[in-house]
Amino acid sequence: MTTIRAGVDLGATKIQAVVVGEENAVLGEAKTETPTAGGPPAVTAKIEGAVREAAEDAGVAVDELRGLGVGSPGAVERDAGTVAHARNLPDWDEPFPLAATLGDALGTTVRVENDVKVAVTAELELGAGRPYASFLGVWWGTGVGGGLVLDRKLWRGRGAAGEIGHIVIKRNGARCPCGRRGCLEAYAGRGAMEAHARKLVKRGQKTDLFELMAKRKRDRLTSGVWADALEHGDKMATALLDRAVAALGAGIGSAVNLLDVEAVIVGGGLGTRLGEPFVERIAAAARPHLFVDERPPAMLPAALGDLGGAIGAALLVEGA
Amino acid sequence: MTTIRAGVDLGATKIQAVVVGEENAVLGEAKTETPTAGGPPAVTAKIEGAVREAAEDAGVAVDELRGLGVGSPGAVERDAGTVAHARNLPDWDEPFPLAATLGDALGTTVRVENDVKVAVTAELELGAGRPYASFLGVWWGTGVGGGLVLDRKLWRGRGAAGEIGHIVIKRNGARCPCGRRGCLEAYAGRGAMEAHARKLVKRGQKTDLFELMAKRKRDRLTSGVWADALEHGDKMATALLDRAVAALGAGIGSAVNLLDVEAVIVGGGLGTRLGEPFVERIAAAARPHLFVDERPPAMLPAALGDLGGAIGAALLVEGA
Repeated sequence: MTTIRAGVDLGATKIQAVVVGEENAVLGEAKTETPTAGGPPAVTAKIEGAVREAAEDAGVAVDELRGLGVGSPGAVERDAGTVAHARNLPDWDEPFPLAATLGDALGTTVRVENDVKVAVTAELELGAGRPYASFLGVWWGTGVGGGLVLDRKLWRGRGAAGEIGHIVIKRNGARCPCGRRGCLEAYAGRGAMEAHARKLVKRGQKTDLFELMAKRKRDRLTSGVWADALEHGDKMATALLDRAVAALGAGIGSAVNLLDVEAVIVGGGLGTRLGEPFVERIAAAARPHLFVDERPPAMLPAALGDLGGAIGAALLVEGA
Repeated sequence: MTTIRAGVDLGATKIQAVVVGEENAVLGEAKTETPTAGGPPAVTAKIEGAVREAAEDAGVAVDELRGLGVGSPGAVERDAGTVAHARNLPDWDEPFPLAATLGDALGTTVRVENDVKVAVTAELELGAGRPYASFLGVWWGTGVGGGLVLDRKLWRGRGAAGEIGHIVIKRNGARCPCGRRGCLEAYAGRGAMEAHARKLVKRGQKTDLFELMAKRKRDRLTSGVWADALEHGDKMATALLDRAVAALGAGIGSAVNLLDVEAVIVGGGLGTRLGEPFVERIAAAARPHLFVDERPPAMLPAALGDLGGAIGAALLVEGA
């Protein structure tokens, strides 16, 4: 049987597909925009198209693939192959049978898993996590997601482990997009940071953030917009990122005190975009909170970059 | 070979020894005060005496024991059998070969382990943790210690995992006895609570806490003193315990979001003394912080009570 597999990283803004072969070498790839309307069927059709395109790029027929793995946001039921509550995808609240629908359309076996878990597993098998028996993955993007690797296995708890974004770093603190108060994500999530920036602008504070957003033809403050603003020395962007770094330091310090893992790997849209210098700043912010401070964990950026999610998703295919 | 083993719970105020037989049934016990001077040799001599007394109570000779396990505060090196930095024991900072010294004195094999890890393991094997594959043990006493059981094994990380007392619940918050800021222990540890109460009294606030302490002939606010003050409706005691409960709720909520364990078991001096009603209050305080709030973990008090530490220590003996 062939070792050629496909993987899809389903994101809020783009769908990235890859086809990989021996030792996870990328043989073909395709990228498309995530639809903003039409619900799960529209999204599923786009995924199908991207997989077909990546297979063509690789010179293989889709029905020759060993299978397809999909990393999806929202609440994923792995065994059922369904996705629910994908708030950043169009009209996607009720459970939708993503694996079965795609499997029928493509004539191959499909497995679905939570996108952050997929990315963390990819770092474990192929990326920055390879040298470590235990690490914490912190996925810093619109939200702050996470994954916990213990004894070289993803720790799932009762299915929802890894939510480092919802560690409380300030009791009665800022309101989090999840509705609770004082969570790490309320300070460090890109979504919460944008909401905060908009509020400050309404109060009359100055920033170039929204001009830079318009220049990039975006309707949200993407990671690229934040990076641009930093380069321009924008004061608000600098202050909000400082606040996010301090919050990440406290949350990561807490998690390390509890778990004493060997390493912390920082990925996600903002983490990948801001890269090594910010990982060092987060490490410095965590240090004062470490109970055993003479041997801090290694702190390093995710190694797989933009294709990591899709390559990781291809690992979901049985026999990968 | 005999199954009869000894176990010692070495505490800051008392040394509890037990001798146990088949199925960990207690055959003999002895209790003595922990010396407040004389350093490790004085403490070791007291442990030896307590073990001899417990063996006599059980009707066995110490050299017939299969071995002795000791649960100790401070930094324990299990393989070396040494204890260092036991701040609540007299002049005990440098590593002291507790296992070797006791082994020579008693003519039996001695194993040493961190006291909280011993107590959590005891709950796992014999107590409230028996039905669960994963749980978090929160030991609420002078400090706030913890232990993490995952897949029915104690998770040690690089040796220091479980420090839930040093989860940050309020960035830039109260000073913790560990020297850092905003840790859970800074709000909920009995040591920090007493320091806070003394400060409030200096500022002119009223409380019966220190009168009750004197009546019990204690020089610190023990768990019993706090319980007495609560029963008397003492306002300061009530407020400080409310604050501790809120802090424990935030820290436990954070840990559950990260680990998604099946249960949380609350033990330790204060936890055991205040019991079930306080465990319920802590559960209620954690609830608003739970990311997946429709299926909170079971929250329950430690089941083994006062002898739990010593019985758990006896489990350290090989072949137990």
